[in-house]
Amino acid sequence: MKVGILGGATTKFGELWGISPRTLAHDALINALEASQLQAEAIDALFVGNMLGGILGNQTNLGSFFAEELGVFVPAFRLEGACASGGLALHTAINSILAGRYDVVMVLGIEKMTDHSSDEVTNGLMAAGSDEERNAGATFPGLYALIAQAYMQQYTIREESLAAVSVKNHFHGSLNPMAQFQTPISIESVMRSAKIADPIKLLDSSPISDGAAAIVLANEAYAKKNHQKPVYITASEVATDSLGLQDRETLVSLSAVVRASQKAYATAGITSKEIDVAEIHDCFSIAEAIANEDLGFSERGAGATDTESGKYTLFQGTTITNPSGGLKACGHPVVATGIKQVVEIAKQLRGEADKRQVAGAKIGLTHNVGGSGAVAAIHILQI
Amino acid sequence: MKVGILGGATTKFGELWGISPRTLAHDALINALEASQLQAEAIDALFVGNMLGGILGNQTNLGSFFAEELGVFVPAFRLEGACASGGLALHTAINSILAGRYDVVMVLGIEKMTDHSSDEVTNGLMAAGSDEERNAGATFPGLYALIAQAYMQQYTIREESLAAVSVKNHFHGSLNPMAQFQTPISIESVMRSAKIADPIKLLDSSPISDGAAAIVLANEAYAKKNHQKPVYITASEVATDSLGLQDRETLVSLSAVVRASQKAYATAGITSKEIDVAEIHDCFSIAEAIANEDLGFSERGAGATDTESGKYTLFQGTTITNPSGGLKACGHPVVATGIKQVVEIAKQLRGEADKRQVAGAKIGLTHNVGGSGAVAAIHILQI
Repeated sequence: MKVGILGGATTKFGELWGISPRTLAHDALINALEASQLQAEAIDALFVGNMLGGILGNQTNLGSFFAEELGVFVPAFRLEGACASGGLALHTAINSILAGRYDVVMVLGIEKMTDHSSDEVTNGLMAAGSDEERNAGATFPGLYALIAQAYMQQYTIREESLAAVSVKNHFHGSLNPMAQFQTPISIESVMRSAKIADPIKLLDSSPISDGAAAIVLANEAYAKKNHQKPVYITASEVATDSLGLQDRETLVSLSAVVRASQKAYATAGITSKEIDVAEIHDCFSIAEAIANEDLGFSERGAGATDTESGKYTLFQGTTITNPSGGLKACGHPVVATGIKQVVEIAKQLRGEADKRQVAGAKIGLTHNVGGSGAVAAIHILQI
Repeated sequence: MKVGILGGATTKFGELWGISPRTLAHDALINALEASQLQAEAIDALFVGNMLGGILGNQTNLGSFFAEELGVFVPAFRLEGACASGGLALHTAINSILAGRYDVVMVLGIEKMTDHSSDEVTNGLMAAGSDEERNAGATFPGLYALIAQAYMQQYTIREESLAAVSVKNHFHGSLNPMAQFQTPISIESVMRSAKIADPIKLLDSSPISDGAAAIVLANEAYAKKNHQKPVYITASEVATDSLGLQDRETLVSLSAVVRASQKAYATAGITSKEIDVAEIHDCFSIAEAIANEDLGFSERGAGATDTESGKYTLFQGTTITNPSGGLKACGHPVVATGIKQVVEIAKQLRGEADKRQVAGAKIGLTHNVGGSGAVAAIHILQI
């Protein structure tokens, strides 16, 4: 399979008190069109990813809502799969192109979180969990803390090694003008930050953010004809797992990520070793450590220590992960994340990532996860 | 295009106080598999349509949620476009088959509404409206009342003619053992029922319902090989429009329905005259009257009066609409509706609709609308 990315854009991510969801989406859509040198009239369909618009904003029907904002009454769809909604929207958009139904489509990821109390947001996010977890009063930091405890015990890992994930991602974020946090941090500052759910500390955790991201996709022939430097999506795979941690065989690997990524490597005809750059779903530092292993970048138990030794860091590593700053530093407006990941990798492969450019990157991957691993979407991009 | 329907099933629709969403979905999924003579292991992907699970039940991530219920961790997606979510889930499922990504997929529509107060439900449903409408305190009965007022004035139509829609649909529902209301009603009883929003009365309105519906789709080759009497979907089209009534050119026609249905007829290579049986989105009687015109079954202004004269009634008409009882009598568990429509038409075309069988039906249509017409999904089925 091969689907072209014509262009993409993100808004700045952050606490954007003064900007409405409508304006966020508008800016991402218009800038993605401009990056693709297209007018809205060229768009055949719109795929919108969003998780919390109904629960927090009492606005659904978001396909039509944002098609109206785009200014064209094309077929429009809202996809939802918690924090992986962006990846699911991409997957269905890609399928619609491969089916020959639409030639040029847009995918929008949007989330507005900071206008609501942290109780409302925590409650809303737990909508991605299982009944049992919600009834037990669990939150996502708590669930990932269980995963981190199991991981540290199984592989004898120090908290400092996990902290290295946040340190790397803040360093990368310091090179990204659209990132929510552009300040480097140290292992010491992570270790000193407030404990949220032992061993997870504030600086192990991605923030609550507002933001939007959009891309324009087209079939291969259209992309070839209309774009000087198209990036191609060469694999798009989704897998699911049980919602609740208690129903999984292991806590230290996400089966959905393993299955989706292995399928994606097979579809693209590559191995994990060939990935030059990846955007990882680092909702907590432990999530990135385990992702490194599930994606085949690190041996089992080495996902955090490899990070500590610089394997994934810009200008020194071999497989650069989260050059955007990741969820931790770039910010995590839930569903915008999955689309932002693709915008970032496309920029990297085109050599347009400015200060955070991964030299000579040719093959990239995005890793987008929903809940504590109940759904995963993996995309491989090549130039 | 051609995608096969292997089988489908609905739960009973109604006020199902004692049945959880999980059980509703389970029953629909298992019965649809049985009707298709398949095990869950044969399913490659699951597409879930749902509108209110987040707002009313604080449960999202419904793709994974119901994949777990189905017992297979396949790629799973939640689609949302208000009351048209069922049609959108179908459309994306069909595209994924046409793309060659999945061979056999399930589509599930599910809604649980009656466990919540009517204020909560009314508020939740208004999530499909525009900001302006919500801020003005509008509700869907109020919005459709504006449409009805405009329609009655423009074409000099009596309330009794609109009431004929409900009378027909209750007659049909009386022949459907899965319908929420199985009691025939008269023009007089509609006219005597409480005014909700002038001229819309209680018996002009579809009810609040619980229910689920599921179908199994497969590519043409698989359907031909594995099913003795496959029904084929030969067109699947979606169109959108502005969310708010105030932004439309006319109140007496839904542009999204006109555009989607014209495309669907062209794709299937048929005309509206060839439709033997259709399931119509009669959320209010006025909606069906206008749909008859937008779909090309009636001349402009004749959608209600044609109903009154029996054109759409079982055993006497020429184009039978809502043999299931429609939203009015069969019930309207928001997103289950769009899938139930397809289950019903497939049954009709296979000659398996028992007491409500449309004799010799060969071509059918489903008409699924979200909000007050901001999105429409049209499917054409043929045997």
